[in-house]
Parts: sequence; structure tokens; C-alpha cells
Amino acid sequence: MAATTSSYSITMRLHTAPDHGVVGAVATAISQAGGIVTAIDVAESSHDRLVVDVTCSASDADHAGLLEQAVDAVGGVTVYKVSDRTFLLHIGGKIEVASKVPLRNRDDLSMAYTPGVGRVSTALAENPEDIPRLTVKGNSVAVVTDGSAVLGLGNIGPGAALPVMEGKAALFKRFADIDAWPICLASQDTEEIVRAVEMIAPGFGGINLEDIAAPRCFEIERRLRETLDIPVFHDDQHGTAIVVLAALTNALRVVKKSLSDVRVVVSGGGAAGTAIVTLLLAAGAIDVVVVDRNGALSADDDLPAVHQELAAVTNPRRVRGDLRTVLAGADVFIGVSAPGVLDAEWIKEMAPEPVVFALANPDPEVDPAEADKYAAVVASGRSDYPNQINNVLAFPGVFRGLLDARASEVTIDMLLRAADAIAHVVKDDELNPNFIIPTVFHPDVPKAVAAAIRGDGG
Amino acid sequence: MAATTSSYSITMRLHTAPDHGVVGAVATAISQAGGIVTAIDVAESSHDRLVVDVTCSASDADHAGLLEQAVDAVGGVTVYKVSDRTFLLHIGGKIEVASKVPLRNRDDLSMAYTPGVGRVSTALAENPEDIPRLTVKGNSVAVVTDGSAVLGLGNIGPGAALPVMEGKAALFKRFADIDAWPICLASQDTEEIVRAVEMIAPGFGGINLEDIAAPRCFEIERRLRETLDIPVFHDDQHGTAIVVLAALTNALRVVKKSLSDVRVVVSGGGAAGTAIVTLLLAAGAIDVVVVDRNGALSADDDLPAVHQELAAVTNPRRVRGDLRTVLAGADVFIGVSAPGVLDAEWIKEMAPEPVVFALANPDPEVDPAEADKYAAVVASGRSDYPNQINNVLAFPGVFRGLLDARASEVTIDMLLRAADAIAHVVKDDELNPNFIIPTVFHPDVPKAVAAAIRGDGG
Repeated sequence: MAATTSSYSITMRLHTAPDHGVVGAVATAISQAGGIVTAIDVAESSHDRLVVDVTCSASDADHAGLLEQAVDAVGGVTVYKVSDRTFLLHIGGKIEVASKVPLRNRDDLSMAYTPGVGRVSTALAENPEDIPRLTVKGNSVAVVTDGSAVLGLGNIGPGAALPVMEGKAALFKRFADIDAWPICLASQDTEEIVRAVEMIAPGFGGINLEDIAAPRCFEIERRLRETLDIPVFHDDQHGTAIVVLAALTNALRVVKKSLSDVRVVVSGGGAAGTAIVTLLLAAGAIDVVVVDRNGALSADDDLPAVHQELAAVTNPRRVRGDLRTVLAGADVFIGVSAPGVLDAEWIKEMAPEPVVFALANPDPEVDPAEADKYAAVVASGRSDYPNQINNVLAFPGVFRGLLDARASEVTIDMLLRAADAIAHVVKDDELNPNFIIPTVFHPDVPKAVAAAIRGDGG
Repeated sequence: MAATTSSYSITMRLHTAPDHGVVGAVATAISQAGGIVTAIDVAESSHDRLVVDVTCSASDADHAGLLEQAVDAVGGVTVYKVSDRTFLLHIGGKIEVASKVPLRNRDDLSMAYTPGVGRVSTALAENPEDIPRLTVKGNSVAVVTDGSAVLGLGNIGPGAALPVMEGKAALFKRFADIDAWPICLASQDTEEIVRAVEMIAPGFGGINLEDIAAPRCFEIERRLRETLDIPVFHDDQHGTAIVVLAALTNALRVVKKSLSDVRVVVSGGGAAGTAIVTLLLAAGAIDVVVVDRNGALSADDDLPAVHQELAAVTNPRRVRGDLRTVLAGADVFIGVSAPGVLDAEWIKEMAPEPVVFALANPDPEVDPAEADKYAAVVASGRSDYPNQINNVLAFPGVFRGLLDARASEVTIDMLLRAADAIAHVVKDDELNPNFIIPTVFHPDVPKAVAAAIRGDGG
């Protein structure tokens, strides 16, 4: 059974006989069925019945159903209604717009809106360089998706992607006080996406591309970077790459190896894999081999266009073969591909003290607990194991730094500095195989990343 | 000199000798120069000097300069720095994004973002009709402009338009708890604007078109209404029309005339004029004549395409001539054209108890004080005279009603009901020539408009 997480938390409203002892029986039943009780509230208590709200965590929908049955089977208890806390949380959306200025009376109105605002607009028409300072543009980011590659869910479309983009906007605010707004586009055509983002750009200080499928995402980002005067950052690529490089930096500190000496195998040549490879090479890695479902990419082979560039800069020894073959003798495995593609036993054939990052979401390339038997350091995308590789470590600070600096572009040096900043939030005396990366709630992370992006020191 | 409004409010920081009597001298100097002192704060007081912040209202930039000179001329006073309160208010922008959900710990994160959000997105992919209920779409409006006709400033472009759109978003929140976000488009091409709005529509529950020049705005609105499944509302047209009809309804109550009997002259055949005419006709007006700079529009004439439709439904008596000629004998003048086109003397030639709405912004067709000498009822767009025709009375409630009803379109019946609702916020015993329209701060207005739009009674 998967770990019990509050992402599957349910609240059952129970009607019971007026016997407070029944609450204990319910808690026991949930516990025995593998659930975790997180709250019990008696909503009503009268002479003929109790109404009790029991909140508990389940591992998934089936498990939640089992918990409901277990409670219903307790004598004298009827499950009246089951609410899913995650869905309840989403009712009405997760973000809102707030006014930063008072609008109490006519005077307020005449400064924030007409006629006073006319003077501000006139001034900005004459001095466009003041727009970021006198409008929300200076602190705002568009979170842009076409809904084509949302989380591990695939092409669910722009409307269904909205909860994810709203969540991202909420995280931007929480971790970096940035005003991000979701822009979910009703087209998956590269030309149309590029043009739509160009069109909306005047109101934003940065563009965060999100969950756009490869290879479309590469061209969209490249073209927008050419035409826009605000930074464009595809988080699934560069956010992931920053956090992977940060984690790898610290994993190599643990095993006392140098990035320029290690052999790295990257499983997956999609958006994330490509960005990771680019950043590792910029950071000094030399021997990087990308493996996709057809085996190692090599410049000697006849490859699709999207993989040619990748092959040209990787695999200096021109190795061939499937993942297991290529992995033999390698120091580092980085998976951004698909669940279960790595057999834990193969890790035994890697170089001594191997590092394994299994980042496929929600199910990794190898079970982290299995990998841990053979690897010196293991990381994954999951929050229920140590060393979670989470983009939340990067994107808020990255955009904070970009907006602070009124940057017009994102450079690879910025990405390298950001990764280094995250890595060094973990102090030498904290560093160990189970703590190579700080928690997303570490208050120093966004500040350190923003400072690194601005270039004023981590 | 124009009225002193707080939209031109300045704060002067003064350095003076350590004599508190000087403060009185400064206040007197400002007052004698025609300014209004609204606050005096002693920021520092030491044995050798005082630092005093004096805030005062001026009528315009030149007047503010005069006030500064007047203060500087006071013995022992140096003006150290002058701050413009309207500009200060705009620093950093006027709106922000707020998270409605807690993000304190891992559990919160796993419900609002991954992995929990994945279940919500999956559910929405299966049941798209739930998107408005479980996302911000259900309460959000895009305030879309191309910056081509901003206030009375003209074509200042999308970036300089941003303060106006932000102000509008702040008003949406203040008056109707709606989450509006400014979308300032980097193109003034009809095709591109239509396509951009179609592209961003999935994330919004309504589209408020704003300050887009005529005739482009007509086609943009028409085409978006055809293709989108959310309501599209060009506020400069329909918001204005609603408030004009509301005000005219009450003006006619005052002079005891009926809309179907009166002769109405509309000066200006642009976006607002066209929408006003359409709504007046739908409300039962019969004799409406539109006058532009070439005189009365008549179906007999050879007119540009944009005026042909207007001429076809107006001017049943086929009158010709300039504004003065057409106005003779008319009951109602509605100006949405240009400053000063109406000579107050001409009002004497109108029918008895004439109604004059001079709505050009910021300077009306006729000075309201002059018009008041001859007209029974006068209204304008200005806040410093009675009877301000202000779109803020309409758009917040209109979109509140549309969002509440999950409406997919705006109908003319909705507009008529909204106008009627605004008119009837003014009770019979409150109604008089100087009070035909409620203040924008009347708490009943947005609720009454929303109820009218929903169709559940005003």
C-alpha cells in the first residue's frame, strides 16, 4: 500500500447513538484499516444522537472506500456523508485578487481610478521604463500552459489544468511574494501559443511556461526568448534542472566525487532530461549519456531532430545499448522518464557508491526504498521519502530574483548560481545521504536563490 | 480654475525654523493660493529645525506648482521635497494575488498542489462542467484592452493602459468581490485580439473589454460572443449604456415625460453612442437622432459602414442639420462626443424641461454649471457636479450576476433590467433634479444589478 498522505484526506460525518464511547470504536476501526485519524469533532450532541465529523488520511480512493466501510461496520454508527478534503479545499478556487489600495470614498477612487489614474498612464506613455515600478507588472508572472503535459496526467487540456496553475500561483505568493496569474491557453499549436504569450506580455514581468509537452515546449521557449523583453522560464525544464544540479552537487559532496569525473546516465530525453543535461554540462560534467526507450543516444546514430542536438553534446565514449548496459560502471543515475524502468538489482553493477535520482512522477523509475539497499544516495520526487527533488525549491526564488533585477532574460549562469545557492543552504554538518537537499519550507531557500539570480551573492 | 480634487494631491516636505507658528503661515499660504490643506504632520522636531509634511489638494499640475511656490515664499520655510500622492499610491501596482488556502506545511501543500491537485484535475478532465466550481474561473474576469482608446487619453498602448486596468480590477474586487486580472494586449489588430482572447478564455468566467477603439471594438465583441461560452461585455459601450438609461429613466421621472414620447438627440456615433442608442430603442424610445461632426445621421444619406446600421434604426423623421438645428425642440441631449460641442444657449431652444447629459471625459460637451441655467436636469461624467454618470455603478454588479448565474452570454434584456435596477435604487422621495442616480458607494447598487442580471428580481 502506498504511503498515507493528506492529499487523500476524507471527512466522514457520522450519526451515532448518544454514546461517546462510540468515538473510540470508530478511531480504532479506522486505525485497524490502515487509516490515520487526524481530527474528531462532535458537531452535535443531543439526547438521542451524536453527529461526529471524523477526518482521516487514506492512501488512495480505494483505501478511502475501505475506511468508510470499516466505520460503517461499527455498531450504532451510520456514515451520513463523506467529504474529500482536497476537493473541499478547491471549491471557489485557490487564489484571489486583492486591492492593495483603499477604495473607501470618492478621494480614494479619484486617485486609484479616474481621473487621477490618467496622469499615471500619461506619464507611463511618455516613460515606458517606469511601467514596472508603477504597476503590477513589476511583480507579476504569467503561469502559462496549454494543458498538454500536466503533472503525470498527460494532455488533459487547459481547463482541467487550471487547479495546477492556481496552485503554482499560490506557491509563488507563499514562497516569494510574487503575483502570478494562471493563463490556460485554448490551443496546442506552437504558432498560436507563441503569439498569445507575446500578446499578453505587456502586463507581466515574467513568463513561467508550465506543463507544455515536448518537443513543442523547446520551440515556444526559444522563440519567446527571442521576441520578449521579459524573462521566459519553462519550469518543467529549468526548475527541475536547477534542483537536480543542487541535489547532485550535494550527493557528490557526500560520496566525495567530482562532477567532472563522474559518469552520469540520464534516463529520458524529454523536456526535463534535455534541460538537466544542458545544465550538468555547463556545470562541468563531461561524461553524460542519455538513454531513451531505444537505448543510449549517440551522435553516430540516425536520430529524430529533437534528439540530434542532445546526442551531439553527450555520450563522448559513443556507448550503445539499453539502460542496464549503459548503467554498468556509471556513478550517477538520473531518471526523468517512466515508472519502473530501473531494476534495483542493476544498481549493484554501477560504480562504487552510486547515486540514484528516480524522479518520474507520481511513480518513480525504481522504488526509493529498494534503490536504497544498493545506492549510496537516493533521491526522488516523492515527499514520503528523504531527498525530495521539488521544483518549489527553485521557481519562486528564481522569479523573485528576475523581477528584483528587472531582468529581461534568464541566463545559464543564473541557473548555475541558483543551483549552487540551493545546495549550500545545506550546511556541511547537516549534509548526509538522507539530507542532500533542503525542505521546501526552509526560509532561506527562496532568498538565497533570488540573491543568486540577481548576482549579488548567495 | 477646475475643481480641486484629490487626484491631484501633493505632499510637501518642508524644513523650517524651529517655530511652530510657521505651520499656520504655511496653511494660510496654501489656502490663499487656492489649495486645500488635508493633513499636516510634524515628522521631526529638534532644537534647530522642524520637518513638516503638508498634504494638500490642487486642481492640476500647474496649480500644484503655484502652491509649492507659495509655500516656499513663506519666511523661514524651505520646500525640501514634493511627492504626488497619486503617484505614490501607484508604486508597486494596485492589485495583488492572494492565496485563499493555507500553505503552512507538507499536508497543506499536498492538497493544494501535488499530488492532491492531480485528483482534482483528473475529475475536471472528466467533468469539465465542474471547472467553474472548483477553480478561480467561477469568479474571475479578464479586463482586456489593446490600449487604443484609454480614458480621454487616446491610443497610449497596452503598457501605459495597465494602471487603468488595474484600477478596474481593484474596483471589481471592492464592489462585487470579483477576481479580475488585467490583460493588456500587444497588438491592435482585430484578428489578433480576437484570437488572443479566445486563447486565454479557459481560465476566466467572463471577458470585460475595455478602452478598445471603435469601430474595431464592435467586431471584436461580436466575434467573441459567437465563439466563446463565457459572457463578453465591452464596458465602454454597455456599461455606459446601462447607466445612461438608468439616469434617463429617473430624469424622465423628474420631468414627468415618457421615454416613448421624448425626442432624444445623441451627440457622438462611436462605441458609447451606438450602445446607448441600441439600449434606448430596446427600452422603448422611438425618436432618437444621432449627430456626429457632419450632422444628423439619416438612412437617406450615404454613410460609412459603421454608421449605416445606426442610421437605419434612428432618425425616423429623417431630420438633417447640425447639432443646434436637430436639438431645437428635443427633450433630451446625450453627449458622448467631445468637449464644448454644445453651447449652453442652445438648450433654450429645446422642448420645455430639457434633460442634458454631457458625458465627454474629462471635459464635457457643455459646462454642467452653465447647462444647469437652462436645463431641468443635468448630468455629467464629473464627480464634482451632481448626477455623475459613472460606469462603476454597472460593471461590478453586471459581472457578479453573470458569474453567479454561470451565464454564457449577455442579453439585451439583462442590460435593460440592470438599468432599471440602478434607477430604482433611488426612491421616489429621494428623487430630484440633483439626485437622479445613486452614488457609486451606495451598497445596494451592485447587489441590485447582480440580481437583475440573474433575473431573480431587483
